[in-house]
Order: sequence, then C-alpha cells, then structure tokens
Amino acid sequence: MNKMSSSGVYSLLPLALRSLNKIEKIIDLEMTNIGAQKLSLPNLLSANAWKRTGRWESAGSELFRLKDRKESEFCLAPTHEEEITLLVGHEVASYRQLPLRLYQLGRKYRDEMRPRYGLLRGREFIMKDLYTFDVSEEDALRTYEEVSIAYKKIFEKIGVPFVIADADSGNIGGTKSHEFHFLSPVGEDLILTCPHCGYSANEERAHGLVSPTKQISSHVNQKQTVNFGIGNNNRLIISILEFGRVLNVSKLKAANSENFEIIPIRNDNVDIKDILNNNNFEAVDIYVDNTFQKNLSDLKSNQLFNKIISEIQSIVKHPTSIHHGDFHNTSPGDECPVCSITSVLNHSESLYPLFGHRAIEVGHTFLLGTKYSEPLRATFAPENVGELRPIQMGCYGLGISRILAAIIETSHDEYGIIWPSSVAPYKVCIIPSSDEPTIQELTRNLFDLLTSTSHELNGEILIDDRTNLSLGYRIKDSELVGYPWMMILGRRFLDSGRVEVHERKTRQRIDLKFDEIGNFLLKSHDVDLC
Amino acid sequence: MNKMSSSGVYSLLPLALRSLNKIEKIIDLEMTNIGAQKLSLPNLLSANAWKRTGRWESAGSELFRLKDRKESEFCLAPTHEEEITLLVGHEVASYRQLPLRLYQLGRKYRDEMRPRYGLLRGREFIMKDLYTFDVSEEDALRTYEEVSIAYKKIFEKIGVPFVIADADSGNIGGTKSHEFHFLSPVGEDLILTCPHCGYSANEERAHGLVSPTKQISSHVNQKQTVNFGIGNNNRLIISILEFGRVLNVSKLKAANSENFEIIPIRNDNVDIKDILNNNNFEAVDIYVDNTFQKNLSDLKSNQLFNKIISEIQSIVKHPTSIHHGDFHNTSPGDECPVCSITSVLNHSESLYPLFGHRAIEVGHTFLLGTKYSEPLRATFAPENVGELRPIQMGCYGLGISRILAAIIETSHDEYGIIWPSSVAPYKVCIIPSSDEPTIQELTRNLFDLLTSTSHELNGEILIDDRTNLSLGYRIKDSELVGYPWMMILGRRFLDSGRVEVHERKTRQRIDLKFDEIGNFLLKSHDVDLC
Repeated sequence: MNKMSSSGVYSLLPLALRSLNKIEKIIDLEMTNIGAQKLSLPNLLSANAWKRTGRWESAGSELFRLKDRKESEFCLAPTHEEEITLLVGHEVASYRQLPLRLYQLGRKYRDEMRPRYGLLRGREFIMKDLYTFDVSEEDALRTYEEVSIAYKKIFEKIGVPFVIADADSGNIGGTKSHEFHFLSPVGEDLILTCPHCGYSANEERAHGLVSPTKQISSHVNQKQTVNFGIGNNNRLIISILEFGRVLNVSKLKAANSENFEIIPIRNDNVDIKDILNNNNFEAVDIYVDNTFQKNLSDLKSNQLFNKIISEIQSIVKHPTSIHHGDFHNTSPGDECPVCSITSVLNHSESLYPLFGHRAIEVGHTFLLGTKYSEPLRATFAPENVGELRPIQMGCYGLGISRILAAIIETSHDEYGIIWPSSVAPYKVCIIPSSDEPTIQELTRNLFDLLTSTSHELNGEILIDDRTNLSLGYRIKDSELVGYPWMMILGRRFLDSGRVEVHERKTRQRIDLKFDEIGNFLLKSHDVDLC
Repeated sequence: MNKMSSSGVYSLLPLALRSLNKIEKIIDLEMTNIGAQKLSLPNLLSANAWKRTGRWESAGSELFRLKDRKESEFCLAPTHEEEITLLVGHEVASYRQLPLRLYQLGRKYRDEMRPRYGLLRGREFIMKDLYTFDVSEEDALRTYEEVSIAYKKIFEKIGVPFVIADADSGNIGGTKSHEFHFLSPVGEDLILTCPHCGYSANEERAHGLVSPTKQISSHVNQKQTVNFGIGNNNRLIISILEFGRVLNVSKLKAANSENFEIIPIRNDNVDIKDILNNNNFEAVDIYVDNTFQKNLSDLKSNQLFNKIISEIQSIVKHPTSIHHGDFHNTSPGDECPVCSITSVLNHSESLYPLFGHRAIEVGHTFLLGTKYSEPLRATFAPENVGELRPIQMGCYGLGISRILAAIIETSHDEYGIIWPSSVAPYKVCIIPSSDEPTIQELTRNLFDLLTSTSHELNGEILIDDRTNLSLGYRIKDSELVGYPWMMILGRRFLDSGRVEVHERKTRQRIDLKFDEIGNFLLKSHDVDLC
C-alpha cells in the first residue's frame, strides 16, 4: 500500500491513494455542508511569521528548517496557523466578511525524533486542516461545536469505532481542545474513560482524582518518583510523585505563571547533593504531587520531604519554593473527576474508577482564541464602530495518512486488511480463473452487470486479470489487500452457473446466479454505505 | 485567485483550486485510458539517489537542500525520476511486470534565481508527472507516441490553443523530447515554426539554417558577439558569433565529448589580454559559430579571428583547439531545416524562413532511455533467459499551476479572465439583485432548474448572494473572475419574466424565459464541452 523512501517518509501506492481520495471525498462533503471552502496553502513557509508568533523558537528541532539561495530562512510547514492567519488578515477588513471557514488537504512535515509504525508517525504526512474565523468568542465556540459534529459525521462515515477525548492543546495553544482517537493496542496515547458518565480524556489532560482507598505513607523508605530538571533563570526543578507515576510537564508548567522550559537531568541514579554541588543554581522549585502527599498541611510531617529539604539547606541557602498539586498523568484506576464530584454532592460513597485504552490520535480540534490573530494582526472592524478587534480563531486537524494507517491497524485479521466499504480502494475484486475466452466474456458480463446495478459501484470494480499468476495466489492477494467483496469466475461457475461471492469481513462464501448478485449487494450494508 | 506567501511561493484560493481540480480530472481520465496508475511520491527526498545519478551536483543552486536533526541530507523534490526509479526498481523483477505507467499530481520545488509572473515561474509549484517503464527501446518509443497523443487530448479538452515543439532535454537527459506551449506575448520561450511544413521547435533546440541571403563579412570591424567562459580542467572558452546572436550552451556542450560546465565571465567589456594575464589557463577552446564564418575553410582569411589567435599566442603558448559549427539559438528569419533540405533536393531556390512566437511552456515529454535505470539499478529479467536489463524509461511533465496561470494570461480581456468552460471554477454565476423573498425564491428555482437540466451543471452553479454588495459590483466581480455564464435575477425579470443571460466570452446578453434556458445552454458548446 505504501513504500518507505527514507525514515518516516513514504510513497503512497495506487491502492492507498484511492483510499485516501475516498476519505477526502467524505471530508469534502461534510465541509461543504458547514460552508467551509477548500484552498491550498504552500508548504515552504518563510520564517518571518513563525518568529512573530514565537513558534520559530518553541517548535525546536521538530521543525525542518532550510535557507534559499539568498540565505532567507524557511521551514517546511508542520501546520498552517501562521500562514492562514496572514492570508485572512490580509483579505478581511470588516465583520461583514466573517465568519469564514477555510480548509485544505495536503502535506505536512515534522522532524520526529523517532519516526515509527510507517504512516502512523511519519516525517512527511498528509493532514486535513480547517481554520475558522469568527467575530466573537461566542461565535467561535458555536463554530467549534458545529465543526465537532461535522468531524463526528466524518468518522461515522469512515466506519471505524472512535472516541472523542478532552485533550491537551500542546504547542498549538488555545483554550479548548479535543482529540479524536481510534482504539488500538499499538496506539501511543492512553485514553481514560469513565464507563459510568462517559467522561473521556487523554492521560496527559485528564484530571482524575487519586483514589481515596490508596493509602499514602509518609516514611522515608516509601517508594517515590523524583525527577530533576533545569528550568529558566537557572532554577533547579525537583518533582516528587508516587512511585510509578509519570510527571506531566504541561500541568507543572500550567502551575507556574511563566511559560518556562525544563531540561531534564537524565541520570537515573541522581543524588540531590551531587546536583547541587556540581551546578550553580540560583533557586530551587520543589513540586510535590498530590499522589505523593495528598494535603499540603500533611507535608511538614512527611519524612522523605523533610529529608530532601534538609539536604538542600545543608549545602546552599537557595531560595526554595514549594508547590503542591496535580502534576501527574492520570492513570487507569484513578477516580472519574465528574462522577466523584456528583458522588460527593450526593453524599454517596460509590467509587468510579477510570479505564485505560491504548489509542491512535487521528484528529485534534482547538479553540485558539486570538493566539495567532493578535501577533499577526488579523483584525476586523466590528459592527458597532469601535477599535479593530482580533479575529477569534479555531483550528481542526485530521491526520489523513495516519487515519489510513490506523484503519489498517484496527481493522485486519491474519489474512490481511479488512477495509470498511466506505474507504476500500475498490469495493469488488473480480478474479477470472484463466484467460479462456469463455471466462473472459463472463468476466466482462459480470463487470457490466455490477456497474449497471448501482451507481455506487461505478469505478469500484477491479478485475484481477493477472492470469499468469495462479488463482490461489490471486485469491490470497485479494484477501491481503482487503477488498470488501471478491467474486471468482472459473470452473465452478461453468459447472453450476453460480458465481462464488466472498465477503472479506466474515470470510463467508455464497454462490449466486448472475441475476441474484445485484439484489444481494444492494441489500448488503457494505455496498451502499458510502 | 492566488496569493503570494513569499517570493515565488503562493496559496491557491478556493476558485483557483476548483479550476486546478478540473484540470486534474481531465488528466485522470486520459491517464486511465492509457492504463496509467496514480500514486503519490514524497517531496522530502534523501540525497543518496540524487548523488548516484549525479544530479545532486548538476542541479546546482536550483535545488532546495536541507538537513534533518541527524544531519542527513535531503532535497525538496524538483522532479521525481530518482524516486520513482528506486520504487519501480524495487518492485519489478521480471518482464512480466512491465510495461508500467505511473503518474502523480503534486508539489515540486525549484529555487529559481528570479521567480516571476506569479504561478508562471514559482519556487513551489504543482506538476503532474508521468513515468513509464518498458522492456525495450521500441516499446518505450511506442509508449512515447501513445502518451503524446494522450497529452494532446488533455490540451484539446482544456481548450486553449497550443503548439508542440521539438525541445532540448536539458538537465533531465534522454534522447527525444518535446514541449507543449501556450502562445502568449509574456512567454519566456521563443518557438520557431515553419508555416510551410509545420516544423516547430524551441529556439534553443531548432537547427534552423542561416539564410544564404545574409552576407557575412570578414573584416575586423565586423560586428560580432564574443563570449568568454571558464570550462572544466581550467580551460578558457571563447565563442564567436554574428552580432546579436545568442550563444546556445547546450549545442556547445553537445559538440564536446565531455559533459562540462561553463562559468561565464560576466564583464561585458572584457579584453582577451586581460583575461589571459589575470588567469592561469591550461588550454584555450575557441568555438567559431557558423553565423560568424560559414565555412571552416574561409576561417583562416577572417581578420577578426586571426586577431584573436595572435593575441592569445602573443601572451602564452597554450594548446588551442578550434571548433566550428552551429553554436547559436535559431532566430526568426533563419531557414526551416526541413524545407531547405527538400528545396535542395528538388533544385528549387525557394526560401522558407521560420517565424517566431513567444510561448509559455506548459508540458514537456522526455524519452529517457536508461539514464536513471542504469545508475539506480532498476532492472528486469528478460523473457528469453539472459542478463538482467535496465528498464527503458520515459517521463512526461505537465506544469499544472503554470497551466492555470497561462490560461489566464492567454484568455482574458480588459474586464477580467475568460475561463474556458472546461476548467472554469463554476460554469454559471447567478446574481440575485437583492434579498427580497420573491427574488430569493426565483434564485432557488433557477438553481434547481439548471441542476435538473444537465448532469454537467451539478456543482457548477454559484449563487453570488452577497446582497450587502451592489448589483453593479457583483456583475463586475463575476466578469473579473470569468464564469462562462452570468444570470441576473432582479427588477427586469419581475417586469418581463425573462432572465438576463450573459456570455462572458462574447459579453453578449440574451433575455430568456425560464423554460428556454435549459435548451439554450444545452445547445451551447461551452456547457457540454467538458
């Protein structure tokens, strides 16, 4: 389906491209329905706008950077907020030109540290990205809801089960954000869901509560996870979590007013004394996670914490700040934050633990506010005369090449891919057993019959006429590629007058006469689904 | 239609993208008809294959180069011969898998010295490129003819007059090459055609004969064009042409066995003595063009030539080689090479001067032979057992974003663009004069009527309902964008019961009743053309 060119860079072969174009058609329809227009932005982007939004720096080494012959700086677009904001800012002057919804489908570039799983995490990949422009926060929020519904419809049409999770907005920024996920054991994300209320969030974003049944001891020999890092202004950052908990750097940053960066100290057996002796820190920040000590008031009696504090003070008199709160990734087994509150309000003692599911992120929506329109001066004259206002924006991404790969991950068996009919490269594969004239004529007849049966089958039928390859080989190949229906014309048809019709999903066979096939397919959900 | 992002880099706005997609559909149909399959190759290409074919060096500063986080070298694809050859070389083992025809439509990158004319010469642009793979030279030539016919059909369907010219194969290499051109005064190419026999070639490729009526004098004060350059192995290159003639570096290179590079010496008032005194050349090559001296035998009596030779020899005893031949671009007024030969054979004295036309190159076809398959080892096992043979290749490019820009260049008037119906963003623009309910209902009725008139009009009708803008403004805007048909519904319709139907091409108006419109459009060539 696809072929590696270099690490994380792939060619899409003809069958994969056909599936991709079907996903594109589904998207185009839903986007037209919400009044979004399609355009095409460049991928070679000048550094200027990226410097104005601060992302030229913050994107770090994930950004592919290059210079042209005149030494001007460019990057390969990992996303297009800057570009579209400049474009719209240039074209829009008045509230009369808003709202505006613009999308595209094209390449994106990210210099991943570890490209892997083929198209799942590539360095050149295909995204569909929609950008929305509104006059007010309320309008932008309504747009966000409207687009979310359109995105749900897109995934429903594709036909692979998905979940929508509350998400972290990461480097894109903004105030509201959701992720669309396909569930899969190879997924890199962990989604936590509450089977009781339906709460669903990425482990990094979830604010699950630490179960009250878990006893937290305060002995020095208690197991704990201590992380060290170097923050801005030469500060030592120490975080203390329950053993096995994962530090959530986004939460730690959010607790701080500064947008600071942390360089982790990578030595696993690091000793506080060594770090303090070998560096010249100006301050020490200690982040005490609530998995390590639930209440701030109990902290002073925590022996381990006191040991750390005394070690610091025995060496240097640094100004030391202590922060306490939720600095960890939520884990399966933690309490659902929604149900727990209800539980408290109802004086109930029920527990609602969250369940964890591995998942592949295939879509991400962000309410951006004015994060891009302000620095790039994309403003409009409001209805009631007044000062120019920055446009309220949203951005909405779908990882198209990743969706393709994720479908294959989530929908296959030992024989190969099981394409949902909506996005299968072809819906039907006809295999003539040989190139005998009788068989060839039957093949043509069957092709004509299917094409005339349903408009949906136009252009959807492939004839595997590689009769220099064995019938067995071609049957296996058809199953490997995963066409929803395979029809075999050969000796058995000549004997019985019935075509072997195989359904890929169930691997069941039914033998049908020519005049029965049309009705059979029309009754099947799999053919008229798209 | 499009908007500049940075020099030579553009966004395609929604209307331009619609036109582009129509060109793509025309191409897809013709490609399917010749059995070509569509795929999608990456744009971030590893340097490895480019080094193996020698193009990493020879592409020079037109290649956008970059490094990833691991310092591996990449380029942004200006073309995909290397990539597709590696892909096919990996997949194909036997003659049974050939012929193969693969194409794509996507971005390309070229760091142009002087990007200009918007999409006509951009640094990020959209190309359609087809690559063909055959077992023998004869098969490859047949493929070349077949593709040429398909390309002609594509241009005929687009509907803009074009010429096919014999072309230079430039950096792509190969043995046979043609260019497809739109004629336009802003074109950068000069096409020479013979109205008598239809011979047609790019000025760089044409081998027009110098008219026998032109007298060439041999006095020192004769005007001439002398170019100096530095070639490989530290050689001084001197070319002498008739005054006003343009040196054709490709012909000069072809006359030499080596594939050498020439760095021009840019000083216009350069003196041979100065050059020789200030450089340490190891040899001197003098190229005497046949516009300067027609016959080699007359050269020794040419005073200017003798002056140059004596100046060289007075300073240093370099080995000096003298080459004589056609080293100039053919000019309008030179003789058609085909007709002149016929003329000589028939002992006729007729003259057949070539005519010059400015043109925009929009397509280029190359018979490549084994230029790429040999260094990249794309081989196959032939039918009769024997050694593996390199695949015979062809490549065929269409400049899609350039076609879009060239259509606008060649098909416009003072009021705006005149889109050929085949690629117009919409075929019909309906303009309701106001948002009165009566007018709105009429607009919907007209829309429904047109949609039911012809399958061709589905999705092809735009309603300009920006009734906050004046009717006059919207009429001008519709003419500017260039929809083939504009229909106005307003006061005049309420008075007369007739819709104003305007044809963009002729700017003629016809007032029609609702029930006349369908027939009128169906009879018009412009609507059912696509």
